Amino acid sequence: MRRFQSPRLLLLGFGNVGRRLVEILANPADYPGLADLGDVRLVGIVTRSHGATVDPGGLEPRRVLEDYGRNGGFRETLASDEALREIDYDVLVEMTPLDIPGRGAAAIAHVRAALESGRDAITCNKGPVAWAWRSLKELARERGRALVCETTVMDGVPVFNLVQRCLRGNTILRIEGILNSTTNYVLGEMERGASLESAVAGAQRLGVAEADPANDLEGWDAAVKVSALANVLLGADLPPEQVERESLLTVTPGRIQAAAARGVRLKVVCEAYPEDGRMVGKVNLREIPLSDPFALVSGTSSILRLTTDIAGKVVITEEDPDLSTTAYGVISDLFRVGEGR
Amino acid sequence: MRRFQSPRLLLLGFGNVGRRLVEILANPADYPGLADLGDVRLVGIVTRSHGATVDPGGLEPRRVLEDYGRNGGFRETLASDEALREIDYDVLVEMTPLDIPGRGAAAIAHVRAALESGRDAITCNKGPVAWAWRSLKELARERGRALVCETTVMDGVPVFNLVQRCLRGNTILRIEGILNSTTNYVLGEMERGASLESAVAGAQRLGVAEADPANDLEGWDAAVKVSALANVLLGADLPPEQVERESLLTVTPGRIQAAAARGVRLKVVCEAYPEDGRMVGKVNLREIPLSDPFALVSGTSSILRLTTDIAGKVVITEEDPDLSTTAYGVISDLFRVGEGR
Repeated sequence: MRRFQSPRLLLLGFGNVGRRLVEILANPADYPGLADLGDVRLVGIVTRSHGATVDPGGLEPRRVLEDYGRNGGFRETLASDEALREIDYDVLVEMTPLDIPGRGAAAIAHVRAALESGRDAITCNKGPVAWAWRSLKELARERGRALVCETTVMDGVPVFNLVQRCLRGNTILRIEGILNSTTNYVLGEMERGASLESAVAGAQRLGVAEADPANDLEGWDAAVKVSALANVLLGADLPPEQVERESLLTVTPGRIQAAAARGVRLKVVCEAYPEDGRMVGKVNLREIPLSDPFALVSGTSSILRLTTDIAGKVVITEEDPDLSTTAYGVISDLFRVGEGR
Repeated sequence: MRRFQSPRLLLLGFGNVGRRLVEILANPADYPGLADLGDVRLVGIVTRSHGATVDPGGLEPRRVLEDYGRNGGFRETLASDEALREIDYDVLVEMTPLDIPGRGAAAIAHVRAALESGRDAITCNKGPVAWAWRSLKELARERGRALVCETTVMDGVPVFNLVQRCLRGNTILRIEGILNSTTNYVLGEMERGASLESAVAGAQRLGVAEADPANDLEGWDAAVKVSALANVLLGADLPPEQVERESLLTVTPGRIQAAAARGVRLKVVCEAYPEDGRMVGKVNLREIPLSDPFALVSGTSSILRLTTDIAGKVVITEEDPDLSTTAYGVISDLFRVGEGR
């Protein structure tokens, strides 16, 4: 019998967010609101290059963190496809890194395998949402299972849930947001006079930018998020390759400072809206007046404006998120999976 | 048998928002998202001084609006307590005006009567939420009925739903917001040099302020909202009389302009948070730096910042609402009532 109260999780991938999630689960007394999440049990954590750990009876979260910390990884090795076949779990949490050149193929295969075997799936990997949402969602419906993805845009701040559960009855006419921390941080530094190179290096030192910042700077990460929003919230089937992108690499410090001198701020704005029967997706540099809350979104904060036909304009902002914010997205998805059972 | 798909509504009160709600229901083709709301039927609209109209088989929304518009009211007369006893309905929509001196007694009685007779209740009147939430919610639980109130704070922009359904598992540590349009509009005008009197008159001309603006200016409306937020989201039992209030009437134009000259904005900020085992509620004038999105909330817009233990700081903003935004709050509550059945 499937247990609503004791979902058994299989984590694929175990980066910063996964570790923070397990830290939260290891310290239930610190988070009284989690009492009604039920008895979440980790039955497997499987990584590509840092080993795997499996216990059908449930891994002890503190022990997992200690082992991983001491050894820089787990001792067992297990391939993800084997793990999906051989471990008995209830909910897949797909946390492997986004693979843009591969169009998310591995993560899509993981989610498909989970749903096909009658499991629920939480994807923190944006690949399945950007490139295969429609078919995966259809599969989830056929199997009567949940497929959710709250962390993929704005970390754990509710975006998908907000629309699907708190704005029911509205038609979403337009979505616009500032959704990529690296470009937002870099633009802020360049506005203060930094060169692109030193701003990127600063973002890397802070852990905001990845070692290879190209996906962020060229707008790919933002385009993937535009696809995710368009696919989940606007019913589109828009792959990131069809999202217009403007690269930050084309922007001169002069353009940024000229905008600041005119009292506006240059920001990388993501947009999605239907027009003439097709879905438009854009990642563009736009000049934002200081009277618009988009102008105030700095550093790692992000913002999303939803234009609806009945409720008007609703704006949600994530202020200074940390790893817990993103880990909360998985917790939010666990609640949602639990409600669906 | 109670019909999930065809809830029969009894409206008590029929002001601007009620009429806008009926206009929306009268034009389903304009709002495709409402298709899954089911076949909502109005079986009664009862006002205190503009008559009543009742049809157990369902009133025709267009006809209701025509009749009301032509005659400035309905022809029948019916007392609200009689209506609650004699009309067969499924969901009460309590839309009568807020009565602060009476501590919401009439609206509380309406909601209690509905719940006691096994009906669901939507209250747009803040009285039941501010002065009787705990006992009414307990009654609703006993009877297995819904009691919801989305319009009472920030119109139809999801506030209660956001916390209860999209931030589950978090403990809310602090709530702060700009929630009263009249004071916010008046402060903006005074910052631009207007006197208090002319700013209030301007707000009245725009329909932002009521004919008697005292409840807004003295912070009572905001205090009632603080109570609503504290009671529903923080589990408090805090009546508006226990919310600290600072009146706008004590503020000089000089203080406002001096703040502006220093590069900050004076705003009426609502707060609620637990401290030393008790609930603190405040409505205070605070100086807001221009880097805080609270500084950008002007006119009839409003904003709420939720500080949570796991997800961090989540801010939701309502931009330039109109009557549809508020009417949407009732629609949101109708969805929620339907989901509970």
